[in-house]
Amino acid sequence: MRREGLAPMSVLSAPTTSASAVSVDLGPASALSCRECGQRYPLGPIFACAECFGPLEIAYDLPTGDPEGLRSRIEAGPASIWRYSELLPVPADVATKPNLNPGWTPLVRADRLAAELGVTGGLWVKDDSGNPTHSFKDRVVANALEAARAFGFTTLSCSSTGNLAGAVGAAAARAGLRSCVFIPHDLEQGKVVMAAVYGGDLVGIEGSYDDVNRFCSELIGDPAGEGWGFVNVNLRPYYAEGSKTLAFEICEQLGWRIPDQLVVPIASGSQLTKIDKGIRELISLGLVEDRPYRIFGAQAEGCSPVSRAFKDGHDVIRPVKPDTIAKSLAIGNPADGPYVLDIARRTGGAVEDVTDAQVVDAIKLLARTEGIFAETAGGVTVGVTRKLIEAGVLDPTLTTVVLNTGDGLKTLDAVAPTTGPTAIIRPDLDAFREAGLV
Amino acid sequence: MRREGLAPMSVLSAPTTSASAVSVDLGPASALSCRECGQRYPLGPIFACAECFGPLEIAYDLPTGDPEGLRSRIEAGPASIWRYSELLPVPADVATKPNLNPGWTPLVRADRLAAELGVTGGLWVKDDSGNPTHSFKDRVVANALEAARAFGFTTLSCSSTGNLAGAVGAAAARAGLRSCVFIPHDLEQGKVVMAAVYGGDLVGIEGSYDDVNRFCSELIGDPAGEGWGFVNVNLRPYYAEGSKTLAFEICEQLGWRIPDQLVVPIASGSQLTKIDKGIRELISLGLVEDRPYRIFGAQAEGCSPVSRAFKDGHDVIRPVKPDTIAKSLAIGNPADGPYVLDIARRTGGAVEDVTDAQVVDAIKLLARTEGIFAETAGGVTVGVTRKLIEAGVLDPTLTTVVLNTGDGLKTLDAVAPTTGPTAIIRPDLDAFREAGLV
Repeated sequence: MRREGLAPMSVLSAPTTSASAVSVDLGPASALSCRECGQRYPLGPIFACAECFGPLEIAYDLPTGDPEGLRSRIEAGPASIWRYSELLPVPADVATKPNLNPGWTPLVRADRLAAELGVTGGLWVKDDSGNPTHSFKDRVVANALEAARAFGFTTLSCSSTGNLAGAVGAAAARAGLRSCVFIPHDLEQGKVVMAAVYGGDLVGIEGSYDDVNRFCSELIGDPAGEGWGFVNVNLRPYYAEGSKTLAFEICEQLGWRIPDQLVVPIASGSQLTKIDKGIRELISLGLVEDRPYRIFGAQAEGCSPVSRAFKDGHDVIRPVKPDTIAKSLAIGNPADGPYVLDIARRTGGAVEDVTDAQVVDAIKLLARTEGIFAETAGGVTVGVTRKLIEAGVLDPTLTTVVLNTGDGLKTLDAVAPTTGPTAIIRPDLDAFREAGLV
Repeated sequence: MRREGLAPMSVLSAPTTSASAVSVDLGPASALSCRECGQRYPLGPIFACAECFGPLEIAYDLPTGDPEGLRSRIEAGPASIWRYSELLPVPADVATKPNLNPGWTPLVRADRLAAELGVTGGLWVKDDSGNPTHSFKDRVVANALEAARAFGFTTLSCSSTGNLAGAVGAAAARAGLRSCVFIPHDLEQGKVVMAAVYGGDLVGIEGSYDDVNRFCSELIGDPAGEGWGFVNVNLRPYYAEGSKTLAFEICEQLGWRIPDQLVVPIASGSQLTKIDKGIRELISLGLVEDRPYRIFGAQAEGCSPVSRAFKDGHDVIRPVKPDTIAKSLAIGNPADGPYVLDIARRTGGAVEDVTDAQVVDAIKLLARTEGIFAETAGGVTVGVTRKLIEAGVLDPTLTTVVLNTGDGLKTLDAVAPTTGPTAIIRPDLDAFREAGLV
C-alpha cells in the first residue's frame, strides 16, 4: 500500500540513516509494527513498511493486571494528555519537560443543542478549541515532539495548510528547538501570521499542498533534511498516537464509559482510526467496560471521497480535488480512508457529508445553543450529526459525543458574510425602541 | 466620586426598581459595601453608593477557622474558577448550572523568556488565552451571569469594544438567556463576527465607545431596559469579583504562595485592584503566608493616564483620548485608576507604559520563547516587564508572574505587517539550498 504519494525510494532510504543505531526511551512504546503485514521494526524515524509499504504503528508493552491502580494514577495525573503517559510513546517524565501540555479539554454537556437536534440519550461536545493553539493538532504535535527529542532531532518541521504550522511553531518554541515549516505560498495572510509568529522559519512553496508534501518527502531523503523531524512524515507513527488521547479523555470524562456513538471529522482519516484504537486499548486494559460503540465519520461535500466510497459500498477511495470552506479537512486522497471505512462498517457507524451552507448553519447552531464557536471542521461534525439523525441513521436515544477539533477564530471568513449586527442605531432610547428589540 | 461618566440620577434610580424586594442566594456574598464611605446595601443590581457615588463592592461571610479544610475542598474542586466558589458571589451549586466554566488556565513556567529578560528568580506567564472565548473576560462574565440569574434577569447585556461582547454572547447562549450587546458601529468585521456569531442581538451604536457606554446607562434607567443585566454596569460589583480568581489560581498554582512581583495590565484598573483584593483574602483566610508582594501596572503609551499620574506623583487621573493598538486596554478615563495608584504605591510596585512598537516586539518575544501568542494586552505586560527590569525597578532575582489576558488570534493586525514567510521558493531541493536555511 502506497502512502500519500511518497515514492518507495524515500520509504526505504529513511530507516537506514538513523533508526537502527539510536537507543530511545519512549516509555511503553516497544517497536514499530506494520499495520498491513505485521512486520516489526525498532523504534526510529520511519513511517512505512519496507516489505509492503504499509503504514507503521506503535507497538506497546502496556501496563496490565491492575486496572484500578492504572486508573488511579491517571486520575491523579496532570490536567493534560500526559495523564495518559503510560499509554503513549513518551518517556515517563514527559510532563516535566518544556512542552505545551495540550489536552484535557472540556467535554461539554450540550443539552440545548440536544433539544434542537432531538437527541434524548445525552449529547456532549468534545471541544478541542481549548488546546494551546486552539486545535487538536497540539495533541499530535506534542507526541511527535517527544519522538523528535528521543531521536536527537534539532529541527521540528511539517507540511501544512495552516493549523499544523502554528502548532509546530509553538511547540518548537516552547521546547527550545528550531522549527522550519512548509506551506503553500498563497495562503491567506491570517494563516501565514499564525504560522510565522512563533519565530521559526516559514517557507512558502510555489505550488499546491500536494507539491509541498512531495517536496518534504524529498527533503527527508536528502542531506539538507538531516536532523529534521517532520511531525507528519517521518515522525508520523508517534504523531498519530496523539489522537488516541481524544478517546481516553472522552471515556474518562464520561466516568470511564464508552459513549454509544461518536461523530468524528475525516481529513486523512488518522484521527478517527486512532480514536477507535484508543477505545480498544481502554477495553483491553480493563479501564472501561467492553460494550458496542458506533463511530461516524464526517466530511464536507466538497471533499468527500470517504463518504462517497462508504455510500457506494467500495473498499477503495477515489481521490478528489477538494473544494470546500472546511480547509482543515480538505485532503483529497486520505491515507487512512480504507481504515475509516473498515471501522465505520465494523462498529455499525456510517460516513456522511454536508454542504458548505450546512457547515455554516451548523457552526451558528452550535454557537447559538452552547456558546461554542467552532472551526469549519466543527460545523462539519455538527452538520453531519443533524443529517444522520434526520436520516434515522444516528440513534437520538443513545449517548452521543460530537467532536469540535478547532476554533472559529481561525475560520472567521466562513461565517463573516452572514454574521453581523441586528441593528445599527443612533445612541438614543427612541431609536432603540424603534429597532424593535424590546 | 463619579463613576465612568454615569449621571447620579441613574445611580440613584437603579436600586429602587428591583434590588430591595429580591431574596438572593449568592453563596458567601452578604451585602454590597461602598468602597469609599463603607455604606452597606442589600445584594441587588446596583453599582454605586447612593450616599457618595463611590463604587460598591461585595461584602462576604467567608469561611474562617479551618484553612486546611478549605484548601482541601478547593483542591478537590473542578478545574475552573468554581473551585473557589466559597470565595465568590455565586451559589454553592454553581458548577452544576450551564455556564462556560472558565479559568484554571495554565501558569506557564517561562524559563526561555526569563533567560532573554535576565530574570533569575523564576518567571511565569499566567496565560488566560486558554479561557473559553480566549480572554479573561470569561471569568468576570461568569460571575455576572450568576448574579443575573439570582436577580431574575432574562437578558444579558454589555457595552463593549469586542472581547466582552463575545464573552457575554457565549455565556448567555450556554445559559439559555437572551443577550443584547452594544458596540460602536464601526468595529472591524472580525470583531463584529466574534460578537454576533452566538446568535444574540448585537446593536451597533453610531458613535464612540463612550457614546455606547452613556447609552447603556440611560437604558438601565428606562423601562426598555427592565429585566436586563448589564454585566459591566448594573452587575459590575459581581462581575468585577471574577478577577480575584486570577490571584487565587496564581497562588494555588505556585503551591499556595504569593509571588514576589506581578505585572498586570490596566484598562479600567478593576482587574489589578481585584487581584490585590484576592491576595489579601487568601492571606486573611490563612491559605497563603502573609509576605510582601509588589504589583506593577502596565499600559500602552497611547493610553497611559494611570502611568502618567504615577510618574507625576498625582492621585488624580487626567483622562486621555486613546490611540494605541492595544484596544482592549484603551480606556481613557479608567474608573479604578486612583485605586491602582494606591496599590502600586502601597506594595512598592510601579505603573509603566510601552510604545506600540514595543508591544509588537514583546508579542513576538513571548511567541518565540514560549510558544504563547498573546493579544496586544499581553504584549503590553511583557513589554513593561522588560522595561521595568532594564530600569532596575522590577527585581529580576525575585519570583515574577506576568499576565497574558487574551489571545493573539484576536489582534492579528498588530503583528501582520511584520510577520511573514522567511522565504518563498520553488518546490525543489536546489531552490531550498539556495535559500540558505540549512
